[in-house]
Amino acid sequence: MEERYDIAIIGSGPAGLSAAINAKIRNKRIILFGNKNLSFKLTKAPKINNFLGFYDISGEDLKNKFNEHIDKMGIEITEERINAVYAMGDYFTLMVNEKVYESKALILATGMEYTKPLKGEEELLGKGVGYCATCDAPLYRNKIVTIVGYTQEAEKEANYVSELASKLYYVPMYNESYDLVDKIEILKDKPLEIKGQDKVEKLILKSNEIETDGVFVLKESVAPAQLVPGLLIENEHIKVDRTMKTNIDGCFAAGDCVGFPYQYIKAAGEGQIAALSAVKYLDSLK
Amino acid sequence: MEERYDIAIIGSGPAGLSAAINAKIRNKRIILFGNKNLSFKLTKAPKINNFLGFYDISGEDLKNKFNEHIDKMGIEITEERINAVYAMGDYFTLMVNEKVYESKALILATGMEYTKPLKGEEELLGKGVGYCATCDAPLYRNKIVTIVGYTQEAEKEANYVSELASKLYYVPMYNESYDLVDKIEILKDKPLEIKGQDKVEKLILKSNEIETDGVFVLKESVAPAQLVPGLLIENEHIKVDRTMKTNIDGCFAAGDCVGFPYQYIKAAGEGQIAALSAVKYLDSLK
Ligand SMILES: Cc1cc2nc3c(=O)[nH]c(=O)nc-3n(C[C@H](O)[C@H](O)[C@H](O)COP(=O)(O)OP(=O)(O)OC[C@H]3O[C@@H](n4cnc5c(N)ncnc54)[C@H](O)[C@@H]3O)c2cc1C
Ligand SMILES: Cc1cc2nc3c(=O)[nH]c(=O)nc-3n(C[C@H](O)[C@H](O)[C@H](O)COP(=O)(O)OP(=O)(O)OC[C@H]3O[C@@H](n4cnc5c(N)ncnc54)[C@H](O)[C@@H]3O)c2cc1C
Repeated sequence: MEERYDIAIIGSGPAGLSAAINAKIRNKRIILFGNKNLSFKLTKAPKINNFLGFYDISGEDLKNKFNEHIDKMGIEITEERINAVYAMGDYFTLMVNEKVYESKALILATGMEYTKPLKGEEELLGKGVGYCATCDAPLYRNKIVTIVGYTQEAEKEANYVSELASKLYYVPMYNESYDLVDKIEILKDKPLEIKGQDKVEKLILKSNEIETDGVFVLKESVAPAQLVPGLLIENEHIKVDRTMKTNIDGCFAAGDCVGFPYQYIKAAGEGQIAALSAVKYLDSLK
Repeated sequence: MEERYDIAIIGSGPAGLSAAINAKIRNKRIILFGNKNLSFKLTKAPKINNFLGFYDISGEDLKNKFNEHIDKMGIEITEERINAVYAMGDYFTLMVNEKVYESKALILATGMEYTKPLKGEEELLGKGVGYCATCDAPLYRNKIVTIVGYTQEAEKEANYVSELASKLYYVPMYNESYDLVDKIEILKDKPLEIKGQDKVEKLILKSNEIETDGVFVLKESVAPAQLVPGLLIENEHIKVDRTMKTNIDGCFAAGDCVGFPYQYIKAAGEGQIAALSAVKYLDSLK
């Protein structure tokens, strides 16, 4: 395990980046999770006019400006996808597939790119449904596991879990070649529903139905309430006050995930507020 | 009088500018009040690191970037100081010394640069104390008027009012040469208190005491509650919800004037939200 950080920031869009630079200026030990491409919502924008200071700039160019900014400040992006965060009272535990991180304060800047849950997914969460196969793998020794994978990242988890499970089904939600070990059975089918009484029993697919003890849904992004159990959601967004504080002490949020309008500089402004509020929170712990 | 605007924006700092570009992108007829220097809080900053996209930039350079942005979008700054705004139900009346503007929606982005009120100033506001000498001049025909001027701008008002008043005292709060007509009496003294029962009777200065029927305090900025009568203030800032709406329908606010932290990109993000909320409000009027 790494040393405990002051502030962990989840998300490398404008909200997360702005939070990172502001926390760093205040001399906090930060860790920023996301990806080197920052946000596909940035790279895909053809032309941006509404970010004060940059007129008629492409998303790619704005991304480069952001990258230059964090580079010059010595801020690095840790390319890991956080699967779950637990509020432990005066610190947070962040779960990545194989690793665990800890921080005193947390800033959620995850954007709003969530896949709709499957029928039964939310009801059976924690009862056989999970979002981190490697984390929960020990529970499925000699059992049947199904992985619904939205990205190629999921294949690594599938390969790992297949070593323990008696049987592993892989349902890819994308069209590419798959880098999976032989014993994994690939089902090119559309998952419709997860069924079970008190725990997962079956996965219903469009043209098939399989018995399974566990279903892992490995998405690009996990919805905030699933990412951080206990987090208060209002109208599909994380509930925050004007200081960007959520209902959980030490947990702040910014950007698309806290509400409309979905815009870059709104996200950046909120990321700044969240960082400064987190700094205040850290000071109050002393 | 000018044609009625869709949105009037008061303030040319990052909050007001961001509001202006976002409202303009939405094709609204806007008018932006402020000054060509944008904000002295911008020009005076030696080095800015916390505005995402610009690392280690001087305030002067950031100002130039902002100016370039609004220039390219054809947004002009109307160099007038708004003295009072009245909510008329479905529109607003904005008073400048000699002129009146009208708008359907209003965005306050005035910053927080207010001079502390004189003793008695708030109590006697509207009872002989005012912030726009030219507006109220007709009330002081053949009366004694005192103008406490914080900027050279105030001299123009003094000269104008001196044509009607029986006597005009001018108390300059700055050290410069004064461009005042001969009949004005200049008092280089420190004003301490405005006195009177139901209306202004006296102005107490450090080493003098004068009888006067009216006192105009002409500051760089008027506090929001004085600018817009009826506006709700909380902890010295304009009270807004997360959409940047104030307690007055159609009136939004952004930037330092709505609260901490006092920072550029926070102000710009809020200006954007305020503009988009104002656009929604205008749509709801249809
Ligand atoms: C094509 C397009 C054009 C647009 N044009 C404009 C425009 O011109 N102007 C404008 O203002 N807005 C525009 N937008 C909207 C703008 O992109 C968003 O409002 C903005 O990106 C939101 O920023 P954010 O930081 O909240 O989230 P995002 O930019 O969505 O970033 C979130 C990041 O967090 C990462 N993440 C999420 N969960 C995790 C996790 N568990 N672990 C690790 N990382 C995680 C994501 O992978 C992503 O990189 C556009 C959007 C699109 C799609
Ligand atoms: C020296 C200095 C350095 C700073 N450095 C930083 C920094 O590095 N990073 C950072 O994020 N922040 C910094 N700040 C803070 C930052 O300047 C403010 O938070 C920011 O300017 C607020 O923007 P605003 O748009 O709300 O208001 P302002 O920038 O104050 O702009 C308000 C404008 O409205 C005009 N106005 C007010 N009333 C009226 C009226 N009635 N009619 C017409 N016009 C009116 C004013 O003249 C002014 O031009 C610094 C401030 C100072 C003073």
